[in-house]
Amino acid sequence: MEASNKTARQLYQEVKANPTRKRFGFGRTPALINIDLQKAYTCVGEFVTAYQTDPKQLDYVNQLAAAFRAKGLPVVWTYVAYMDSGEDAGVWGTRTNTPDSLQNIKVGSRRAEFDDKLDIDRKRDVIVNKRMASAFHETNLGSVFNHHGVDTVVVTGGSTSGCVRATVVDSLSRCYRTIVAEECVADKHESPHFANLYDMALKYADVLPVAEVIAFMEQYRPAN
Amino acid sequence: MEASNKTARQLYQEVKANPTRKRFGFGRTPALINIDLQKAYTCVGEFVTAYQTDPKQLDYVNQLAAAFRAKGLPVVWTYVAYMDSGEDAGVWGTRTNTPDSLQNIKVGSRRAEFDDKLDIDRKRDVIVNKRMASAFHETNLGSVFNHHGVDTVVVTGGSTSGCVRATVVDSLSRCYRTIVAEECVADKHESPHFANLYDMALKYADVLPVAEVIAFMEQYRPAN
Amino acid sequence: MEASNKTARQLYQEVKANPTRKRFGFGRTPALINIDLQKAYTCVGEFVTAYQTDPKQLDYVNQLAAAFRAKGLPVVWTYVAYMDSGEDAGVWGTRTNTPDSLQNIKVGSRRAEFDDKLDIDRKRDVIVNKRMASAFHETNLGSVFNHHGVDTVVVTGGSTSGCVRATVVDSLSRCYRTIVAEECVADKHESPHFANLYDMALKYADVLPVAEVIAFMEQYRPAN
Amino acid sequence: MEASNKTARQLYQEVKANPTRKRFGFGRTPALINIDLQKAYTCVGEFVTAYQTDPKQLDYVNQLAAAFRAKGLPVVWTYVAYMDSGEDAGVWGTRTNTPDSLQNIKVGSRRAEFDDKLDIDRKRDVIVNKRMASAFHETNLGSVFNHHGVDTVVVTGGSTSGCVRATVVDSLSRCYRTIVAEECVADKHESPHFANLYDMALKYADVLPVAEVIAFMEQYRPAN
Repeated sequence: MEASNKTARQLYQEVKANPTRKRFGFGRTPALINIDLQKAYTCVGEFVTAYQTDPKQLDYVNQLAAAFRAKGLPVVWTYVAYMDSGEDAGVWGTRTNTPDSLQNIKVGSRRAEFDDKLDIDRKRDVIVNKRMASAFHETNLGSVFNHHGVDTVVVTGGSTSGCVRATVVDSLSRCYRTIVAEECVADKHESPHFANLYDMALKYADVLPVAEVIAFMEQYRPAN
Repeated sequence: MEASNKTARQLYQEVKANPTRKRFGFGRTPALINIDLQKAYTCVGEFVTAYQTDPKQLDYVNQLAAAFRAKGLPVVWTYVAYMDSGEDAGVWGTRTNTPDSLQNIKVGSRRAEFDDKLDIDRKRDVIVNKRMASAFHETNLGSVFNHHGVDTVVVTGGSTSGCVRATVVDSLSRCYRTIVAEECVADKHESPHFANLYDMALKYADVLPVAEVIAFMEQYRPAN
Repeated sequence: MEASNKTARQLYQEVKANPTRKRFGFGRTPALINIDLQKAYTCVGEFVTAYQTDPKQLDYVNQLAAAFRAKGLPVVWTYVAYMDSGEDAGVWGTRTNTPDSLQNIKVGSRRAEFDDKLDIDRKRDVIVNKRMASAFHETNLGSVFNHHGVDTVVVTGGSTSGCVRATVVDSLSRCYRTIVAEECVADKHESPHFANLYDMALKYADVLPVAEVIAFMEQYRPAN
Repeated sequence: MEASNKTARQLYQEVKANPTRKRFGFGRTPALINIDLQKAYTCVGEFVTAYQTDPKQLDYVNQLAAAFRAKGLPVVWTYVAYMDSGEDAGVWGTRTNTPDSLQNIKVGSRRAEFDDKLDIDRKRDVIVNKRMASAFHETNLGSVFNHHGVDTVVVTGGSTSGCVRATVVDSLSRCYRTIVAEECVADKHESPHFANLYDMALKYADVLPVAEVIAFMEQYRPAN
């Protein structure tokens, strides 16, 4: 194992400055997945579980969502929320039991609500109550994406080291070209944030500036 | 986002020295999954894709496997290997095309063989040709584990930042108590190794010294 | 292929009278899945898609649900309901487009409501909005059942030749012992009803009188 | 429930003569799945589990496979085969234990071999050792099909009332347009054969004469 005294931030910045991997690239039909942009994780000051990385994150996500909608492409918003019993959080909900514990984000609670700054089309967009880290795990995204012929997934949301990473691994494992819009993913601590951007960039995804994703979407013409 | 100038190794060692999370703990019926201990990843000197972290890794894995077998519990060995076309590697096999590229680990090739130092019972153990990062992704482990009433998964193998991490996330997502035997997982570089031990320990798994897992297995009596 | 001039009813009755297969039997921890007992399928006279087989079906289902709850076991109620666009019905929603078409059972509509005669504990029971035939397809039943250590699934609801059959196949494929409570499943036409009871009894499940399932549940003591 | 004294054969023939459902139709990119055409099921006279419906079945399957290959489309051959312990058959392998029992089709045995009359390109085609009824259950077909952009699945093999039916339900549930080549599916008994053709035609698939599928493939031009 190669040793290193660099921080995760330094290592990610080196990879970003000198990419050694060819891109996966965009395919014919992209979809957008926005992960867990709910108050428990976005309302800094109100919930101790919340965090912010780029202060413009939600603006960028709104821009991306509008761009995908304008081209008739799927826009997915996931959130986590659980039964009163918390049994649908399974083992994951067994290590702590405080108001801030994962399994205590209850269906219908304020912690489960999407951030008020988000522009969500509740009729048109695909809204998914997921329970586990990956947006694909035991949800209907697989069949919805098959129905639309999706071959490319753009990911935003949080946390970078949790649900974003898990979704990206599943996305590539299902053979979608996978793209992370860098300014649109966030985490509580910088080391896991950058460590996971590093892993994703090297193994599973193209980590791109959001401006580049938006530029692609603007010139995108739907496949026929 | 909280800033830090610590390396991933430092951050993991702090968490290890002062664990803040309760353990998930062992359940009634554990299974062992040994991930991708195949020559492409273990034969340092022969393949550039190989790596070593703890020089006793494979000895420990053999001890664990013997302990699980002695109690009549499932022992799983996964490996990656692909068709000549590489199409079963999907998008994952499209960024490079050298003899060392993932999709060029062909079924039946030396890169796909298990390390000669491993004690594998090819009749009794469960051997899985997986294609993607997680040992659970599109494999029959789910039904085999249901059949055995498995509720706990012990993970070894590599890489820590790749297939081990992906398997651990899927394992917890399927509601198995999940345990990583620390000396039994390996990676090419220390920063992703420790960053992923850190993420797994905080979010998804108990990362335990292998001696503790072996000690548990020695006193384990099968659930009835 | 062996020819026959018997009806599906006759063939099922012969198998039932002279079972040639050993039973799968009950295991340690059963769960109950009640499939699509929603007004679109139960309100005969109101919806043309509704049907009735045994007039006491819903009473029996309530008895089963009460028995499972009394022992602390999972009780699942599934229903189908779709987005305004119907895109989550996928290809399945493309052959017809009338008010009675599958994809036009909209979330929040009367067709999607559970039958008023059912005793559902909306806080305690597991309620699942499925989109496809099987209750397991892209739903969180897998992880919830793992969390509870479920090894046996009792199935009720409808239709016998549609969602019941699909759920039973998936249930056995996931290695659950699978039991169909005969009077609790229903279909629009007798031939597919009996043909599917026949297939399920021969291949995938124990088809038992509901009285026998209730008797088992009454003497059942939770596994520890 | 509507009563009927018709046999399954009669009911299927009525539906076939007067189809009331619009077709799902072919999409852009079809794949072919040939299910369990292995000696245990095709060698009538040698194995009691074998059966024949249309004597030209395997010729037609070879024609279809050649047509799909000629257009560069995926050709999948599945078979069932199990470990010595049979544990990967799970509960399904627990009702009988004779040489002809499902779980006793062992990996590498004659029962597990494809029929000698089949033209299989073992390098080029996708060969899948499935354990359960559906070709999609815990196999890598999902990701392989995503990688190829498959949106349509043509199914052949057996048995009509077992693995064909299960595969067809999963195929539609994953939002593939699904087509059964009628002369290419077979069963041991006529009643379940026709009952399942009836269910599939009404609910899940287009059941088409093989000549029509071949004619479509001949004029098919790959989507770009």
